[in-house]
Amino acid sequence: MAFRISLHKDVLSGNQEWAERNLHLFNTNQIFTINLMSSPGAGKTSLLESVIPQLKKHARLAVIEGDLCTTLDAERIAQLGVRTVQINTQGACHLDARMINDVILRFPLTQIDLLIIENVGNLVCPADFYLGEHVRMTVLSVTEGADKAEKYPSVFRSANAILLNKIDLLPYVSFDLGRFRVVMSEMNPSAPIFPMSATSREGLTPWTDWILQTMREQKEQSE
Amino acid sequence: MAFRISLHKDVLSGNQEWAERNLHLFNTNQIFTINLMSSPGAGKTSLLESVIPQLKKHARLAVIEGDLCTTLDAERIAQLGVRTVQINTQGACHLDARMINDVILRFPLTQIDLLIIENVGNLVCPADFYLGEHVRMTVLSVTEGADKAEKYPSVFRSANAILLNKIDLLPYVSFDLGRFRVVMSEMNPSAPIFPMSATSREGLTPWTDWILQTMREQKEQSE
Repeated sequence: MAFRISLHKDVLSGNQEWAERNLHLFNTNQIFTINLMSSPGAGKTSLLESVIPQLKKHARLAVIEGDLCTTLDAERIAQLGVRTVQINTQGACHLDARMINDVILRFPLTQIDLLIIENVGNLVCPADFYLGEHVRMTVLSVTEGADKAEKYPSVFRSANAILLNKIDLLPYVSFDLGRFRVVMSEMNPSAPIFPMSATSREGLTPWTDWILQTMREQKEQSE
Repeated sequence: MAFRISLHKDVLSGNQEWAERNLHLFNTNQIFTINLMSSPGAGKTSLLESVIPQLKKHARLAVIEGDLCTTLDAERIAQLGVRTVQINTQGACHLDARMINDVILRFPLTQIDLLIIENVGNLVCPADFYLGEHVRMTVLSVTEGADKAEKYPSVFRSANAILLNKIDLLPYVSFDLGRFRVVMSEMNPSAPIFPMSATSREGLTPWTDWILQTMREQKEQSE
């Protein structure tokens, strides 16, 4: 067991070096970068489809799609006229910083203000791998249940914002919003919770406003 | 990269040895064992709560609950009067065969017919780790979308049965059941698909019948 733990540390320390290179590239080119994480099917791609037309009015966008296989998600995003690269992890359960570094130069970096990285659908492993992003967002859909922050704490604790998706389904599921808010207020009090629905389009504006405001603040800090 | 791949093989080969010990223990004691896998929040625990009262009439049950942390799921199952052990993986993204071996002797093995192992909520990593189980079941909830088998093929390809959960929500989500059936018929044609809902209790009987029938066949084979 000790062997495996030390290897895990080696992998993470190698990852950290690549993440710092990525961050340097992002900052040098004034690219604000978001790492979007969730379970499979929580709605990351649908949410991006819903807000990209609005975000495009304010920022030059690019998207990296992470999946084990297929280019389904990248095709959906590219249809919106956004520069998109698909990373297929060939079975790996998360994106790592080296994978991002391998593809980042395919983008014209000086022509991008906002890079959104959609991670592999997984509430566990992606949380361990810093990609060089400025902010992390964790999506939870109400159909998954309010106990998920307690059961998968790392991905909720390390998030800068929580997107509570599929609120149009709240009448049909037993999601305890009060409990979720209490748990998050103890686990990660500084992360705002944005209730929203990609289907009904409720709650999307506060989220896009937050992205654009945080992007502006990041840009001011780095100047 | 080669280093990491060879390590992965070492980990899996070590896991295989423990899995074979588990299988030997299960067969010696005539315990039919199920490995239940899904995304977080697909409804594994709720489904078990729904069918355990029925299964208990026909078999002496035990359950192992796998989670990163908390004993929330084990508490829910134990309330049904079933022997339950919680494994907390301390951040690890799947159960492995050694973890099962570590806890299995806490059960009175000669007094158990059916052991259900609820894996960590994760559509990626658990598929790589054989635990010594006789059958694997993968749960997909319709709220996750019909593209998940294509995007996470390993966990769907290696399943002996697919549980399509939350069908009470079909009127409210855009789940393409036809597409899912076509994909599964190519990917894993021998695995039956059981549509069901823990909430409305539709479709639970065909599933419990299949479990009990498969358990009887396994017992006959091993005699």
